[in-house]
Amino acid sequence: MDFGTDFEPLTVQPQEIEALSFELIAQELGEHDFTELQYPVVRRIIHASADFELGRSLVFHPRAVEAGIAAILEGRPIIADVRMVEAGISKARIHRFGGEARVHITDEDVIAEAKERGTTRAIVAMRKACAEAPGGIYAIGNAPTALLELIRLVKEGAARPGLVIGMPVGFVSAAESKDELRKLDIPYITNIGRKGGSTVVVAAVNALSLLAVQQAAERRGGDCK
Amino acid sequence: MDFGTDFEPLTVQPQEIEALSFELIAQELGEHDFTELQYPVVRRIIHASADFELGRSLVFHPRAVEAGIAAILEGRPIIADVRMVEAGISKARIHRFGGEARVHITDEDVIAEAKERGTTRAIVAMRKACAEAPGGIYAIGNAPTALLELIRLVKEGAARPGLVIGMPVGFVSAAESKDELRKLDIPYITNIGRKGGSTVVVAAVNALSLLAVQQAAERRGGDCK
Repeated sequence: MDFGTDFEPLTVQPQEIEALSFELIAQELGEHDFTELQYPVVRRIIHASADFELGRSLVFHPRAVEAGIAAILEGRPIIADVRMVEAGISKARIHRFGGEARVHITDEDVIAEAKERGTTRAIVAMRKACAEAPGGIYAIGNAPTALLELIRLVKEGAARPGLVIGMPVGFVSAAESKDELRKLDIPYITNIGRKGGSTVVVAAVNALSLLAVQQAAERRGGDCK
Repeated sequence: MDFGTDFEPLTVQPQEIEALSFELIAQELGEHDFTELQYPVVRRIIHASADFELGRSLVFHPRAVEAGIAAILEGRPIIADVRMVEAGISKARIHRFGGEARVHITDEDVIAEAKERGTTRAIVAMRKACAEAPGGIYAIGNAPTALLELIRLVKEGAARPGLVIGMPVGFVSAAESKDELRKLDIPYITNIGRKGGSTVVVAAVNALSLLAVQQAAERRGGDCK
């Protein structure tokens, strides 16, 4: 097809825009208590939301970032609660280590089972994910019921997630589901309050896969010394 | 597969959760200047973001909501800037009127052309969309460059969008691109400032398709009288 030829040269390259954005974020965020390993995740979430209140509300389990990086390097699957989260995950960096992004909410067996049991697809999809990948990375940005079901499965011993990124957004049960998540001693990234959503969860996953790629490169560098 | 049988009955149905959320939003938002037709869009955006500041920052061209509903009823395509937006759009309500959701950012010809011209895929994807569907609904939540290119194409006369939902998020050029959009006399939904993103744009599209379905039902009801 004909795209036209009158393309103006780019005055600013995409990498420069990201660097400038990160500089502005660091200036406006000011002092904080996030660790050196947590900060790249916080920064990418603020970058994706332009919301410092949300950024400051983030809470990390002490092992969260290390565990997330390790899970990606081990090629564990990333389970998204909704298609938007699956769509936003940068696939190339995940596939490099043998991992993949999965979403079960539109699976035919999930839809049929939810209908038969009179329950939500989000709950059934979480059960399916935990049966297939109890040690996966769980990325939940939408349904509090999905997060609450995952917490129940963890307590039952049916799931041992590599990491839970639990940030459902909303006015009913979202904040409460995150309060429950923070009571568990498993690796999690979450936030306090109603905010969250697909964009925020995707930013966290993509920040972690960037860290995993960096760590893999550093290890290879180390091996050569 | 075996989903287990110990499903607890749902104590609250999803429709009730939405109704309760909408009640909380109305209470907390309080007085506002949005019209009766704009409010369902505002409410769904606050529902999807839990962000009243963002909700209050929304700006509608006077014809925006009517034009968006009409464009959906006419089956015009909805062009998303990124895959996340495409993934979040409720397809059934769009397909009912012959429309569809499109995204060109990962098209092979777009990737090749951007590389050859030394420009961004977002710009090339917008040119392709305008060449194929100059009267489409444009839903831009990510790249300010995509919105700026669309504005340029509108000024050139190469595009006459049915509606532009322009809410790219970010620290560099996002707010400025929305300032430019508000100078046009074409139907737009946008906001003031840095916030926005895929979830917000998707909420606007889905609110409009719900209104379109309602309006179609009312018209059918009217025909029967």
